[in-house]
Amino acid sequence: MSRLRKRAGTEDFLQQHESIILNPETWRGRWHEVFGIDRPLHLELGMGKGEFIAKISHRHQEHNYIGIDLYDELVRRACEKATEVHGKSSDFDVRFSNLRLVRMNIRDLSDAFGPGEVQQIYLNFSDPWPKKRHEQRRLTHEHFMKMYLSIVAPGGSIQLRTDSRELFEFSLNTFADLELKLKNIHLDLHGSGTPNDHIFTEYEEKFVGQKLPIFQCEVHV
Amino acid sequence: MSRLRKRAGTEDFLQQHESIILNPETWRGRWHEVFGIDRPLHLELGMGKGEFIAKISHRHQEHNYIGIDLYDELVRRACEKATEVHGKSSDFDVRFSNLRLVRMNIRDLSDAFGPGEVQQIYLNFSDPWPKKRHEQRRLTHEHFMKMYLSIVAPGGSIQLRTDSRELFEFSLNTFADLELKLKNIHLDLHGSGTPNDHIFTEYEEKFVGQKLPIFQCEVHV
Repeated sequence: MSRLRKRAGTEDFLQQHESIILNPETWRGRWHEVFGIDRPLHLELGMGKGEFIAKISHRHQEHNYIGIDLYDELVRRACEKATEVHGKSSDFDVRFSNLRLVRMNIRDLSDAFGPGEVQQIYLNFSDPWPKKRHEQRRLTHEHFMKMYLSIVAPGGSIQLRTDSRELFEFSLNTFADLELKLKNIHLDLHGSGTPNDHIFTEYEEKFVGQKLPIFQCEVHV
Repeated sequence: MSRLRKRAGTEDFLQQHESIILNPETWRGRWHEVFGIDRPLHLELGMGKGEFIAKISHRHQEHNYIGIDLYDELVRRACEKATEVHGKSSDFDVRFSNLRLVRMNIRDLSDAFGPGEVQQIYLNFSDPWPKKRHEQRRLTHEHFMKMYLSIVAPGGSIQLRTDSRELFEFSLNTFADLELKLKNIHLDLHGSGTPNDHIFTEYEEKFVGQKLPIFQCEVHV
């Protein structure tokens, strides 16, 4: 992985931590069993170092949360961040009440979640993949959107937040082409003051500090 | 009017120029008679000094164009600009082949155009009316959009172009709430080079010179 150096012991950490799930396809259609309670299931796709998923899951005990990333080291970091936010009893002997961390490729999402099993998806500061030849990798590409729509329940939603004007423009056009129902479109989320109860990601704090506009919108299913 | 000083003789100019229409409601449902030929009818709402409508009408002889503004002096200016672009035979003895200029309040649009009579509407750099208490005056407010939809034919479209991030955000949300079909959304129209055959407005040239992003999108009816 390119963004973060892998520390020693990360593989053991992932194997041993009870809140980390390495075989998510096992739980397809029965994630409520993992949590022991059937609350609305919210996913963050590309959680990075986990600040957002750790904080939102701690604040909203009425939902179950799953943070997903492809990279071992980010899953470990997110787990450490969640431990810091949620608190813990002892090392390697903790399960967050309403949060699990999953290492997987987003391409395989529909192997891990059944139709309508998810209530809300968060896409926070996804890689914009600026080159045209990489546009299929953007997490709001039509083929990803169709996969999300297959697992999100009616009444659910997909929220995109990004600092990338290019990714946001691309995404709006994809949503329009797919005739999706949009709500709460923001072209400068913090422009007239940060919304109440807003939960920042790591990236976002930096960008807002630099006065860069943050784009956000919701797709309603 | 606030933006432009009224010159002497403007009222006579408006009365006497054959391409200026001061009683548009007379022609409701039969604008093709004004032009003498039934070509698709395109409107610009708030044409300002008329650079855009003068140039696009000159370039696209296959359409009929009507430029609309509320202010006498702007209608005169637009007429003078069109004369410059289209060419003329002699003062006060000219009718543009496919362009008419109308002084009216956009609020009265459906008194002047019948259902489905219009093919395309352009909103270029409309006043953003930034204060919340003035939002009903924004030309993409729901009540205006519903009026446009009542006069635009199926297959027609409404194009918004603006430098105002706030107006564009407001407009996208209005379009989403009305579940309108969007296409060709741009958050920085000139960012990767000005589109081919692009027709600038006066405002736009200035903003692009300052490297400010131009926002554009189309509503398809």
